[in-house]
Amino acid sequence: MKIAIDAMGGDDAPQEIVKGAIKASRDTSAELILVGQKEAIRTELNNYNYDQQQIRVEPASQVITMNESPTRALRKKKDSSIVIGSNLVADNEVDAFVSAGSTGAVMAAATFNIGRIKGVKRPAIGTVFPALEGQTLLLDAGANVDSKAQNLEQQALMGHVYMKEIFAIDNPSVGLLSIGEEKKKGNKLTKKTYELLEEQNDLNFVGNAEGRDIFTGEFDIIVCDGFVGNVVLKTVEGLVKTIFKLLQSEVEKSWLAKIGGLFLKPVLKRLKQKLDYTEYGGAPLLGIDGVTIISHGSSNAKAIANAIKNAEEAAEANLPELIKADIDERTD
Amino acid sequence: MKIAIDAMGGDDAPQEIVKGAIKASRDTSAELILVGQKEAIRTELNNYNYDQQQIRVEPASQVITMNESPTRALRKKKDSSIVIGSNLVADNEVDAFVSAGSTGAVMAAATFNIGRIKGVKRPAIGTVFPALEGQTLLLDAGANVDSKAQNLEQQALMGHVYMKEIFAIDNPSVGLLSIGEEKKKGNKLTKKTYELLEEQNDLNFVGNAEGRDIFTGEFDIIVCDGFVGNVVLKTVEGLVKTIFKLLQSEVEKSWLAKIGGLFLKPVLKRLKQKLDYTEYGGAPLLGIDGVTIISHGSSNAKAIANAIKNAEEAAEANLPELIKADIDERTD
Repeated sequence: MKIAIDAMGGDDAPQEIVKGAIKASRDTSAELILVGQKEAIRTELNNYNYDQQQIRVEPASQVITMNESPTRALRKKKDSSIVIGSNLVADNEVDAFVSAGSTGAVMAAATFNIGRIKGVKRPAIGTVFPALEGQTLLLDAGANVDSKAQNLEQQALMGHVYMKEIFAIDNPSVGLLSIGEEKKKGNKLTKKTYELLEEQNDLNFVGNAEGRDIFTGEFDIIVCDGFVGNVVLKTVEGLVKTIFKLLQSEVEKSWLAKIGGLFLKPVLKRLKQKLDYTEYGGAPLLGIDGVTIISHGSSNAKAIANAIKNAEEAAEANLPELIKADIDERTD
Repeated sequence: MKIAIDAMGGDDAPQEIVKGAIKASRDTSAELILVGQKEAIRTELNNYNYDQQQIRVEPASQVITMNESPTRALRKKKDSSIVIGSNLVADNEVDAFVSAGSTGAVMAAATFNIGRIKGVKRPAIGTVFPALEGQTLLLDAGANVDSKAQNLEQQALMGHVYMKEIFAIDNPSVGLLSIGEEKKKGNKLTKKTYELLEEQNDLNFVGNAEGRDIFTGEFDIIVCDGFVGNVVLKTVEGLVKTIFKLLQSEVEKSWLAKIGGLFLKPVLKRLKQKLDYTEYGGAPLLGIDGVTIISHGSSNAKAIANAIKNAEEAAEANLPELIKADIDERTD
C-alpha cells in the first residue's frame, strides 16, 4: 500500500502535513510519499524520528495556491504537487492521494489525470458530519453546481457504497435534502431526483431530509446539489465558530462564569472536537477512478493523519472498483 | 394602529399567542385583535388583567393545521383564522397581521387575499439571523424555489428598504449567497443575479457571501433562492439544538463539569437567547401589499410579542408603500 500526500497543500503546509504523515506512519505499514518541494519537506522531516523506508519524498517544484484558477494552474504548473500527486495515482504508482490544497485544483487534476469511473457522469465531494448518533455523509459538498437529477441519483449510489465499505454500515439510509418531508416538497431538481431514487433497488431511500436532519444521524447519507451542499458546509463551519466565540465572550463577562468556564474546559474541548468534521478524515472525491481524499485547507496534523487513514481504508476496500461494479450492475 | 394576530397558529396556540398579545399590549398603544375560536381565546384571556379596549377577539371558527395543503386549506376553510386575518389586512380593517401558523398557508392567503405589491414578481420571507456584530437578514427563507435572477434582485431591493426602515441601517450592505467570494464562483442563478445587482444604483452590493458570512454581521442582507435559504434556516436550527444537546450530555459526564455547568447556566441561557432568531420578532413576508409577519411554529409568548412589535414598526413605517415607491422608482 502506497499513499501520496500533497505536502504543499493547506494553510499550514508543509509543517502540519509532514507532521500528519509522521503521525499516520505510526499506525500504518503503508508507504507514505510526501509530494512537494524537496528541501522544505526534508527540513520538516528532520524534526522527527521516522522510518526512512516508510516515508519518502517525491519532488514537485511548483505549488498551486488557493486563489489560482484551477484549470489555468493545472495547465501552467505541470510540476506542482497536485499534478504530480494525481499522476502517481493515474500511473498506478500509488494507491491513493491526499491533499489539503485547492479543492478546485485537486478535483480538476483528479478528473483530467486519473479520470472518472466509467458510467459516472460527475464526481462528487462527500463530507462526513458528526451527528448525535453516528455520522452523516453529505454529498455533493461542492464539486458540481446546477446538477441534474441523474447526478444526485449517482451520488446516492456512490455514497451507499462508501458508507457500507468505509463506515461498515450494513444498509445505509439515504435522504434527499429538501425543504419538507413530503415527496412533493422541494424544487424541480429534488422532485425529479425523488422519482429516480424511489425506483432504485437495494437502496435504502427514506425520502426527503431537511437541514436539521444532518445532525440527528437519522440519515447515513444525504444527497444534494453541490451549490447547496457547499453553502451548508460553510454555514455549519461559520456557526460553530460563532457559537464558541460568543460563548467565550459571554464567559469573560463575569467571575462566576470564568470559573465555570475553567471547569468546563475539557468538556468544551471535547465538544469542539466532536463538531470538527476534519476529525473524520477528509472528504472523499467519489466517482474518480482512483482514491482521492480532499482535506480542509485548515487541516492540522491530526486531520491529515485521519485523512491518510481514510485513504488507506478506501484503497484497501478498492472503493473505485466497488463503485464501478455497483454502477455497472445497475445500468445493465 | 390595529394589529391582527392569528390566535390559533403555532404549536402552543392559543395559550402562548394570547400570552404574547398580553405581553405586547403593555408596551404599545396599538389595538390587538386576536383572530380565532372565541371560546378558546376568551378562556386564555381570562387568565390575565388587560384593557378590554385594547385587546379584542375577532371570531374565526376554523383552524388550518401545519400538515394541510395550503391552497386546499384556503379553499375549504374560509372561516379560518389565517383567512380572516389576511382579509382584515386586505379590507384595511387592520394595519398588520401576525401568524405563527402554517407558513405556506399564510403566504398563500397573503398572496391571494392581500395581493402582491405592484411590480413585485414574488414575495419573499426574510429571516433575521443574529450575528457577532448586529444581525443579517437572509431572504428568501422559503417562499420561492427555482427563483429567477430578477426575483433575487427584487429581494435585495426589498431587503434594503426593510433593513433601512426597521433596523435603521443607513446604507445596508447586500451580499449574494454563493460558494466563493469571486464573481465567477457560483451557479447559473447567482452569476446572473450578480450582474443585475452590480447594475443597481444606490444599492450597497458588496459581492458574493458564503455560508459562514451569515453570522459575522459583515452583510446586513444576504439574498438567495428560497430552497437554499430554507435549507440554511433549518440547518442552523438543527445545529444549534445539537450543540446544546451535546453540551448537556458532555456536562453530565463528570462532577466537575456539572459544577462548571451550574456556574455557566446564565451564560448558556444568554447564548441560547442570542442564537434564537425568534427573538428577532418573526419573519416579514416582503412584497405583499400589507404588513404580514410570519412567526416560527414553536413561538412562545416572547417571540409573539416581538413579532407584534415588529409588525407595528413595519406598519408605522408603511413598509409596503416604501417598497412600492422603491420598485416604482427603479423601473421608471
